[in-house]
Amino acid sequence: MPQASTSKPQASVPAKTAISPTRQENYPEWYQQVVRAADLAENSPVRGCMVIKPWGYALWENMQRTLDGMFKATGHKNAYFPLFIPLSFLEKEASHVEGFAKECAVVTHHRLVHGPQGGLIPDPESTLEEPLVVRPTSETIIGAMFAKWVQSYRDLPLLINQWANVVRWEMRTRLFLRTTEFLWQEGHTVHATAEEAMEETLRMLDVYADFAENWMAVPVIKGEKTAGERFPGAINTYSIEAMMQDRKALQAGTSHFLGQNFSKASEIKYLSAAGNLEYAWTTSWGVSTRLIGAMVMAHGDDDGLILPPRLAPAHVVILPITMKADDGGAAIMNYCHKLADDLRVVPFHGRRIEVEIDNREMRGGDKVWSWIKAGVPIRLEIGPRDMAADSVFMARRDKDHKEKTALKRADFVANASKTLDEIQSGLLARAQRFRDQHTRKIDSKDEFYAFFTPKSKDAEQPEIHGGFALSHFCGEPAVEAKVKDELGVTVRCIPLTGDKTPGNCIITGKPSPQRVVWAKAY
Amino acid sequence: MPQASTSKPQASVPAKTAISPTRQENYPEWYQQVVRAADLAENSPVRGCMVIKPWGYALWENMQRTLDGMFKATGHKNAYFPLFIPLSFLEKEASHVEGFAKECAVVTHHRLVHGPQGGLIPDPESTLEEPLVVRPTSETIIGAMFAKWVQSYRDLPLLINQWANVVRWEMRTRLFLRTTEFLWQEGHTVHATAEEAMEETLRMLDVYADFAENWMAVPVIKGEKTAGERFPGAINTYSIEAMMQDRKALQAGTSHFLGQNFSKASEIKYLSAAGNLEYAWTTSWGVSTRLIGAMVMAHGDDDGLILPPRLAPAHVVILPITMKADDGGAAIMNYCHKLADDLRVVPFHGRRIEVEIDNREMRGGDKVWSWIKAGVPIRLEIGPRDMAADSVFMARRDKDHKEKTALKRADFVANASKTLDEIQSGLLARAQRFRDQHTRKIDSKDEFYAFFTPKSKDAEQPEIHGGFALSHFCGEPAVEAKVKDELGVTVRCIPLTGDKTPGNCIITGKPSPQRVVWAKAY
Repeated sequence: MPQASTSKPQASVPAKTAISPTRQENYPEWYQQVVRAADLAENSPVRGCMVIKPWGYALWENMQRTLDGMFKATGHKNAYFPLFIPLSFLEKEASHVEGFAKECAVVTHHRLVHGPQGGLIPDPESTLEEPLVVRPTSETIIGAMFAKWVQSYRDLPLLINQWANVVRWEMRTRLFLRTTEFLWQEGHTVHATAEEAMEETLRMLDVYADFAENWMAVPVIKGEKTAGERFPGAINTYSIEAMMQDRKALQAGTSHFLGQNFSKASEIKYLSAAGNLEYAWTTSWGVSTRLIGAMVMAHGDDDGLILPPRLAPAHVVILPITMKADDGGAAIMNYCHKLADDLRVVPFHGRRIEVEIDNREMRGGDKVWSWIKAGVPIRLEIGPRDMAADSVFMARRDKDHKEKTALKRADFVANASKTLDEIQSGLLARAQRFRDQHTRKIDSKDEFYAFFTPKSKDAEQPEIHGGFALSHFCGEPAVEAKVKDELGVTVRCIPLTGDKTPGNCIITGKPSPQRVVWAKAY
Repeated sequence: MPQASTSKPQASVPAKTAISPTRQENYPEWYQQVVRAADLAENSPVRGCMVIKPWGYALWENMQRTLDGMFKATGHKNAYFPLFIPLSFLEKEASHVEGFAKECAVVTHHRLVHGPQGGLIPDPESTLEEPLVVRPTSETIIGAMFAKWVQSYRDLPLLINQWANVVRWEMRTRLFLRTTEFLWQEGHTVHATAEEAMEETLRMLDVYADFAENWMAVPVIKGEKTAGERFPGAINTYSIEAMMQDRKALQAGTSHFLGQNFSKASEIKYLSAAGNLEYAWTTSWGVSTRLIGAMVMAHGDDDGLILPPRLAPAHVVILPITMKADDGGAAIMNYCHKLADDLRVVPFHGRRIEVEIDNREMRGGDKVWSWIKAGVPIRLEIGPRDMAADSVFMARRDKDHKEKTALKRADFVANASKTLDEIQSGLLARAQRFRDQHTRKIDSKDEFYAFFTPKSKDAEQPEIHGGFALSHFCGEPAVEAKVKDELGVTVRCIPLTGDKTPGNCIITGKPSPQRVVWAKAY
């Protein structure tokens, strides 16, 4: 756990906060400080690559376990494909190569030798005939295998998922949100018909939305991407879009209908029931460690991380309050262990309630703050008086840190699962309210431009303004490009559900089939 | 599932077997065929890299889940470190670099461009200032992080594990046993004293031995490696060694006491309770997807894979036997589903009994054989008569495939978990007997050389001979090198337990503190 913040109250901050700067003062820096204070991850000496620390990795494990269960429940099986992709494979699909061959890690040698200065250099004699790219995504290499696995309609649908690391060489990186190497899952499926492939594409989008809302407590809008934001090689790309507390959109998961583009590139053909050799239809879909960044930015406050209970590595932390050389120390520890044992048998959404007892030798205040910053849903302080009264002194991370309640031990245990559910649904409701507050139907260009322009250059938080604009759009790429250029705003998605009333593009006045979501984006 | 074998009985094979060649005919080829017939993995178009198929990956997931639980129960936490290691990091530890800088994947560029011929080439302008190596193991990059994380004795012990892919450029590869990329876990720990680090090293060796014997059903010998087989940079390397059915040894896991070598290379220092700045003591330990190869070679027979129930992706396969256009088909399927439901609530070593119902449209014989080759512990054939008698027709993979037993359905369900335990312990006992049969105390050089030399060049299975020789060894590296050179035999380990009687080296006659295990090795 991190050290307590040593930040002092500043003129612009009325109350002391554990994280400095606050969200209002400097949102991007607030994010970095929350990640650091919660000990989720840090930068490594390798450019753009992060180290995911135990608390962050435990979060990822919980995300993985949940998603993996959802994938398996929808018929998918896991497999593992090579880290390396030969250049010639990337070249097979024309738009794919333009999208992914830009910035990637290229392996050119397979041996090191001592160079003239004594240090190691790549052995010139070990130059690879064909360089290998570290996978930025695996459509091409998986497609090559699928071409062998799929022979007949009986082999379809083929529903495969891979948990893996991928590399996209990024120039500007931010922990979890954009890193050169990241962890993700990539689903790859093959179907006999376009309809089935499209069903799969949307089914997995639904799985992602379900996960975001019911596990991460982050409300999302499901929609289709415009041409400019499409996955290179896809016919249609769908995404779930979430609003962060700086009112920007974050794309939290994507699902692609690839049509026959990759089956033609990789020769994935099947003999139909009618005896014809047909190209198959494929999909791919993925979410990554970026989800952790989304969760931090959706729920965190100026005291640090706030974890949705269903994904929290620990649900309850018990802080025994014992005096130095206090004879009662052992009794309090026993009381805490007994309490932990009682909690650890309580089921909670496929797990049991997970409890930490923090008996570290450190200042009590620092200890409490370390757990606040780490985002643990429930803190229990147990001192001699609590023990004497057979009670616990409870604080909830979703409430003010000074708000604490004395509860009978048995009552707390009996209600612990319900309390966690309350915190979970409270986080979702709060995020939903925030998004609703900052989502506006806008029907004029002036209002649209004003919405996305800071009120004043001298405003305290010039970066925090705007939100989601639901406005009509004629669909012309040039129009979207112009808005992006002038405002830094893009169409995040064309929502699949909700208001489908036609109207007129706020920029060109041309007909528009429905409102789309415009926002600045991560 | 794979297709049924089309191999025909040959003159040298009295009975038809599903795998051709048999173990006796050609063991290495038998291994490849078993892996293929069970659909565990296959070669990819990327040199030396394998694709782990769903059945093989499900096995790995079960291994992972079990080991991960054991690591967490011994206080370790998971984290994730970069895939890439800068060359200068590898150079920090002198023997480490000599061991690992030889054959590895070297990233030298971070962008592709279209070359003069139109195809993609690494962009010369994107040459990295410092090439990156794809991690062959992570001591150096993890050490750099640990140097930041460890400040005081209060931070110790630091107990971290990573699940990851690693790359070692191999010239001759074999599925699971030796591949360029493989999946593994690597534990990395830091301690205040040499004693604690050594305790940790041996504790994790015990965890590996426990896993091998009680989960994989593979008996192992725990021992120390000789200097020549030590991990580059380690003070002591310990391993678990298993005997395969060709009587060769397979190193199934290693645990290294690294002393202060890596803490000095990475500057991992801590302030002791006494106020002194001290170099810490570190360990590392790992097992990999190689374990799957070990399991195949330890238990498989001439009909294919045999899975130990505790790791099997499915414990029971139900094969409904229905006639075409048979009115009873639906009733039989209902009966099978009801049976599966009853089995799926039965606990089995931290899981529930996992059941597959195979209703594929294919020839019954092919179907049965596909599950035999896949190694599923229990097969149930359910036809109209079984249903009428409320019974099941059971075959066990550890017995002859023709041996089938009719059992009352309720009795089978009530005993299913016990039956699986019987199969598990039977596999271990069989592997143990095999190892005992081919382990011999040898006290003369002549006998030793004869033990490891095929009886005749014309023998039917010249590759299968010898086994483990328990012989005295003076410890001189030159002697070991000579034996390796002449016989292809090495010291697999100096056993930690068992007979510790001193004697005389069978080669030099010099004093030897104890017998060691000599064998040919994978």
